[in-house]
Amino acid sequence: MRSKLRIVIIGGGFGGLWAAKALANRPVDVILIDRKNHHVFQPLLYQVATAVLSPGEIAKPIRRILYYAKNIEVILGEAVEFDKATNIVKLDDGSEVSFDYLIVAAGARHAYFGHDEWETWAPGLKTLEDAVEIRRRVLLAFEIAERKAALSGVKEQLTFAVVGAGPTGVELAGAIAGIARQALASDFKAIDTSEARVVLFEGSDRVLGTFASDLSDSAKQQLEELGVEVRLNSFVTEIEPGRLKVGDDWFKCDVVLWATGVAASPLGAQLGVETDRAGRVKVEPDLSIPGYPNIFVIGDMASLLQESGEPVPGVSPAAMQMGTATAKNILREIKGRPRANFTYVDKGSMATIGRSKAIAQLFGMKFRGFIAWLMWLFLHVVFLIGFRNRLFVLMGWFWAYLTRERSARLITGDAEELRNALTFIEAESPADESSAAHRDSPRRHRTSA
Amino acid sequence: MRSKLRIVIIGGGFGGLWAAKALANRPVDVILIDRKNHHVFQPLLYQVATAVLSPGEIAKPIRRILYYAKNIEVILGEAVEFDKATNIVKLDDGSEVSFDYLIVAAGARHAYFGHDEWETWAPGLKTLEDAVEIRRRVLLAFEIAERKAALSGVKEQLTFAVVGAGPTGVELAGAIAGIARQALASDFKAIDTSEARVVLFEGSDRVLGTFASDLSDSAKQQLEELGVEVRLNSFVTEIEPGRLKVGDDWFKCDVVLWATGVAASPLGAQLGVETDRAGRVKVEPDLSIPGYPNIFVIGDMASLLQESGEPVPGVSPAAMQMGTATAKNILREIKGRPRANFTYVDKGSMATIGRSKAIAQLFGMKFRGFIAWLMWLFLHVVFLIGFRNRLFVLMGWFWAYLTRERSARLITGDAEELRNALTFIEAESPADESSAAHRDSPRRHRTSA
Repeated sequence: MRSKLRIVIIGGGFGGLWAAKALANRPVDVILIDRKNHHVFQPLLYQVATAVLSPGEIAKPIRRILYYAKNIEVILGEAVEFDKATNIVKLDDGSEVSFDYLIVAAGARHAYFGHDEWETWAPGLKTLEDAVEIRRRVLLAFEIAERKAALSGVKEQLTFAVVGAGPTGVELAGAIAGIARQALASDFKAIDTSEARVVLFEGSDRVLGTFASDLSDSAKQQLEELGVEVRLNSFVTEIEPGRLKVGDDWFKCDVVLWATGVAASPLGAQLGVETDRAGRVKVEPDLSIPGYPNIFVIGDMASLLQESGEPVPGVSPAAMQMGTATAKNILREIKGRPRANFTYVDKGSMATIGRSKAIAQLFGMKFRGFIAWLMWLFLHVVFLIGFRNRLFVLMGWFWAYLTRERSARLITGDAEELRNALTFIEAESPADESSAAHRDSPRRHRTSA
Repeated sequence: MRSKLRIVIIGGGFGGLWAAKALANRPVDVILIDRKNHHVFQPLLYQVATAVLSPGEIAKPIRRILYYAKNIEVILGEAVEFDKATNIVKLDDGSEVSFDYLIVAAGARHAYFGHDEWETWAPGLKTLEDAVEIRRRVLLAFEIAERKAALSGVKEQLTFAVVGAGPTGVELAGAIAGIARQALASDFKAIDTSEARVVLFEGSDRVLGTFASDLSDSAKQQLEELGVEVRLNSFVTEIEPGRLKVGDDWFKCDVVLWATGVAASPLGAQLGVETDRAGRVKVEPDLSIPGYPNIFVIGDMASLLQESGEPVPGVSPAAMQMGTATAKNILREIKGRPRANFTYVDKGSMATIGRSKAIAQLFGMKFRGFIAWLMWLFLHVVFLIGFRNRLFVLMGWFWAYLTRERSARLITGDAEELRNALTFIEAESPADESSAAHRDSPRRHRTSA
């Protein structure tokens, strides 16, 4: 018999970590289980994907974040199954962990509308590994174009396609345009990187659709100032190596990035309760699952309507609030007090677009351009975990702002990974006559003849 | 007909890069070809492997380093073959590059004494990918031990084995001991990380054998002060998952790192001239290859005796000097002046061991301990490429020194990579009775019974 109740938390993202923080050094035993050893500050992932920041600058070991909490044990492992009757979590290595309370906060990934095979050609951005893979593809595309131009004199226009104009898609498109026009321009000699096209495809009729429509319009205009082509009402229906389809039209693209759709962690389905189309668990007002008041689902995995009838959005502040609220409910219950229902407090939202460009809705006011961008910078540094990370990221930004350099421009990976990335980038669209002809041409490039 | 002579450089390490710098904005055309897009400052690789620095802090895109050189084109690609008769380099993608002068500077890797199969279990440290892999294995070993101890109460002593007590082996052993005793100690709750063993196996009778013998003795003592067990005259004859053999004795080890032996790039053999046992090309006194005065081999790929009868050592200052000398010889020849033979200038050497611990031979004097360590820090920051890297590395060191933290403690990689790393770490020695028994025990770990 344990002397203290044990709370098991699955996931060290914003939801799980905030729950753990609220339980730190309280009279409970906590085990936090995550597949990764690190918490990632997801709002800055796109900066790793676009070579502004290094992976280590936006991530911190979970056990380091929680080292001060004597009652929290952090375990590297993957939860694969739950036994709700006996209160047990099964891990991938066969071990089992019992709990009195369970908080499932395993997050979400991108959804490919039933076309999971697109992921290989159009990676999404949820983990550090994703970010490094995107960085590799973007940088490799420029390298391959330079090699072609230098050795054979063939200049081809690069096209980067981003699918989905939510915050991530807008950030990626804006940052890639920035790279092409500024950071890389002086380093490439055979190609003019600023001629690269960046096309943002959005199925709906505006970008950043959760913002007020005049801010959406401003964001679109700011994107276009950066050189991004924005295609609204353009629902992508097919992706193949080297091209994608919108309606009946194929577009040649060297790199495709996926930034739309949400699929909650499959652990939600493992719980055996009702889920919505995106795999989110329909939770009770206190975030527990129906019939099992000691099991909670929070963050991007949870589906809950606010009093307004709107769903709680899948954003990091909501996950943090859910984590804290759940921890408090458990502590209340242990003291014999009743639980409180969860209420989401919307503190506003902001989206960055590029250098000096952003939009924000805060305190009931709207901001755009440089002022919104400064607010975005400030808030993201404040919320970044770890003083060292804040210091280094601030310095990194300052450096990037002054020099327009992108300092983390590493193409890494073993030979096979690089070959895979090359395969997609070098694949040439069958619909594209000129490049098909080029593909068949001899590859002996001698400029000395 | 080209108006200017073309110099092709294979490799953007110290040799190739210093050759390129000496040719920058001179009246020649230069093409530098490397498999990676970045130059790595190899002397600090072990700090990436031990989570002090991030990969981006010790590497910089080669084309960024050379952006100011209007006459240098940097190409991402792998040279696979040479045609000495027609002066052509063939790349892996089938393209061909012609040259008037060729400088081959493709470096070396570790050699496994004919046991290449050991590499999987005992990775070496030459690239950023190697460093990240070593970091992953070292950190994973602690995570797995923590999980076992927390979920099943089984505490096993971790053993890290480093094979070879040259500079890299000494740095790795010292840094891992530092991690175990200081950086991780407060973050792990079920295990005491400071109990981990770090064993340094060396086949000869002293560590850092290229230094004076009293400095070797000092280095051994400094290693032991850090908690490293140094085993001299211990030639490793067999490596299997989870264990290694010295003489007739098997040693259980959770992680094995390889830091001995040299194998020059196989490109040396492609040149069709005589090579030594390590695959190094025996070069003429001007670093050209016999019979082909327009083809040079430099750096770790070159085998050359000094006037003293000693070989030029495979260290970065030698590679830099060879690069500069070769570039100057080519420029001289273009002006109709004779070539000069290469002379290696030994400016001394230093090796770091751990926090406040190092040895150095400089200006004919010997240094050890804190003063040698300060000199090491100073010189390595000075030679690091890029002002931003210097600034960030200095700050990172300052932070690590003050807090004893290791900030780059990320375990990254896709699921398969992690499974591979786990396989080696979790493999248990058949010779080890107790762990064999443990392996067969049921894995149902309930502490709540």
